[in-house]
Amino acid sequence: MLKVLTVSDVINIFSDAKEVDNENVDINSAIGRVLSEDIITNENLPGFKRSSVDGYALISSDTYLCSESMPAMLRYTGSISIGEKPTHQIRQGECVYIPTGAMLPDGADAVAMIENCEELGDEILINKPASKWENVVFEDDDVKVGEIVIKKGTVIEDRHIAILAGLGITKVLVKRKIKAAIISTGDELISPYDNREIPKVRDINGYYLTAALIQDGCDAKYIGIAKDNEDELFNLVKNSLEESDVVFISGGSSAGNRDFTINIMERLGEVLFHGIAIKPGKPTLMARVGEKFIVGLPGHPLSCAVVYRFIMAKLIDKMLGRVKKDNSLVLNMGENYHKAKGREEYLPVRIEGDLAYPIYAKSSAISVMARCDGFIKIDRDLEGIQSGEKVVVLR
Amino acid sequence: MLKVLTVSDVINIFSDAKEVDNENVDINSAIGRVLSEDIITNENLPGFKRSSVDGYALISSDTYLCSESMPAMLRYTGSISIGEKPTHQIRQGECVYIPTGAMLPDGADAVAMIENCEELGDEILINKPASKWENVVFEDDDVKVGEIVIKKGTVIEDRHIAILAGLGITKVLVKRKIKAAIISTGDELISPYDNREIPKVRDINGYYLTAALIQDGCDAKYIGIAKDNEDELFNLVKNSLEESDVVFISGGSSAGNRDFTINIMERLGEVLFHGIAIKPGKPTLMARVGEKFIVGLPGHPLSCAVVYRFIMAKLIDKMLGRVKKDNSLVLNMGENYHKAKGREEYLPVRIEGDLAYPIYAKSSAISVMARCDGFIKIDRDLEGIQSGEKVVVLR
Repeated sequence: MLKVLTVSDVINIFSDAKEVDNENVDINSAIGRVLSEDIITNENLPGFKRSSVDGYALISSDTYLCSESMPAMLRYTGSISIGEKPTHQIRQGECVYIPTGAMLPDGADAVAMIENCEELGDEILINKPASKWENVVFEDDDVKVGEIVIKKGTVIEDRHIAILAGLGITKVLVKRKIKAAIISTGDELISPYDNREIPKVRDINGYYLTAALIQDGCDAKYIGIAKDNEDELFNLVKNSLEESDVVFISGGSSAGNRDFTINIMERLGEVLFHGIAIKPGKPTLMARVGEKFIVGLPGHPLSCAVVYRFIMAKLIDKMLGRVKKDNSLVLNMGENYHKAKGREEYLPVRIEGDLAYPIYAKSSAISVMARCDGFIKIDRDLEGIQSGEKVVVLR
Repeated sequence: MLKVLTVSDVINIFSDAKEVDNENVDINSAIGRVLSEDIITNENLPGFKRSSVDGYALISSDTYLCSESMPAMLRYTGSISIGEKPTHQIRQGECVYIPTGAMLPDGADAVAMIENCEELGDEILINKPASKWENVVFEDDDVKVGEIVIKKGTVIEDRHIAILAGLGITKVLVKRKIKAAIISTGDELISPYDNREIPKVRDINGYYLTAALIQDGCDAKYIGIAKDNEDELFNLVKNSLEESDVVFISGGSSAGNRDFTINIMERLGEVLFHGIAIKPGKPTLMARVGEKFIVGLPGHPLSCAVVYRFIMAKLIDKMLGRVKKDNSLVLNMGENYHKAKGREEYLPVRIEGDLAYPIYAKSSAISVMARCDGFIKIDRDLEGIQSGEKVVVLR
């Protein structure tokens, strides 16, 4: 019996998927990887009191009530260099020159900005009172010991490398890359590198899926094109599964071919479902083999792409423990759109200003993928979207 | 004299930057690269008339007026396999079995869905009239000869690989990668890999910029930390410039150090400006050396990151002819924010629902980068943003 699941049932199945193991990487090669630990500092930043301006470090009470007409007069006892430990303590009536970022000397509790000071031989005239801790950055103003600075599950970006470098954390624990194998099936398929004789069709899904999985942070290996032959496909899937976490098979939407794929899944593991209540993309099937998965995607390129991007990418996220940035846009629908009840639909749209217009893609499966600006998800129970209604465009 | 430019003046300077050369890459390694030609097809897709359903190819006029009670009776003359050229022409009174995706045989002008047909020995009963071209996809329904399928300047994604594979275009002309060199300056700086003694500061900008440039598609090379010494820095910059298109120097915001950077720029080329009316990030300077650039970024990590992301990344875009996807979000401001007139400001914000709240980041330069969800750009002439006002969050 065919077991067709709703999209949320399918996502629910993913919640059982086991996360892959961790590995240590250097921050120089950590971009795009998924952090598998919270980054907690054992250090304060900046880690010392420092001046936020160029000026004179002093004791604030020495400047109380001073003004341009009645400046405070402090003894200049030297200057501090950035990156160097101050060697002398400030006592009452004294000051030292301090540049932005340099360490506040012991005894000082404020910095007077250079604009409010005048040199007069060995004396510095202060024209404006400095309040306590004025222009001083505290040792833990930026980062405090024990703070979580980056959360587990984060995809590491340039800005995270910045804070890791700042804290001297040069190695991080990340998820190892997921290994994915991609097989295309169909007697009509040829390689894009081969000469085409009509009505052969070039393999699109294999190239799309490999690119999508690489873009999505996987170690993706394109295995090639399998003929519509159960034994050939069985061996390819079995061998690929040994070296992979997930095997994606696309095509095989014709009745006979679909049977092959189901048979192979049953021979190797447990079939989880035979269809998803989604449009496009219904003929999707999936099996579990131990902690690994075999995914059968539709042969129609747009269906294959929609099911990968909006369903199967969530399996990859789950196996990586990944929390992805939401790139969706909230826009308004530019025209009425009608749909049949019962299936969740992913409708390709183009964006004009803050309006989203449906792209009718029935027979233009390939070009619509290149042309569309995103997809609108329309819930199962809806019968359409009215012009002007708010829509979320997934990208 | 210090030449301070507005942000739009700076962007304007970039319009003179020359695009880098092109190179050919295989579609297997084209993801993330910038297309430097329009992709125009010399082929129709699918390239032949094909069936969009499983059914019987026939001549539509043979089915006119048929019904379940009065089916049309057609002679079954064989079946067509997907990927194979049909060998026989359909004549009046005949039909052939055709699976989804297979090529329509000569003579046929419609496909009756299998659900509306019955087998009866050598005859097929058709229970529902097929209109002309029903269930037939035309040869150019997806892509037409001469059509631009991907535009020059596009960053190649998985979905573009799909159409390239479909069209048999296995090599594309892209911009070569921009070579960037990154130098950090400051006597206070140490490597994140070294033991830190307070008040030394780990190099953040060098690691941030290298990561940001790699993330942005460049060949980025971290040269290292230069001491505050004009000749040392001069040699480093000069040598780096020979192997790079752009050299980024960060730090040197202290008066003496800034002078070094200006001197070096003047010794090597033409200084374009000494400051940008932007907050944070004013102490940014830039020089042109032939077709190459030297960029001096502020030492303060948040300032350095803001200037790279919102200004200098546009230089990289220009040199690549790249049209980037807009990931900005339109939200409402969660609270009032006041700013001084005269400088364009980039304010870090966190997002809660559809509200953006400012993060006050004066002394928390590093952590704010990891914590913030984006930045709001506030125009030069504005004095702030009111709670509830629409804001564009750049990400």
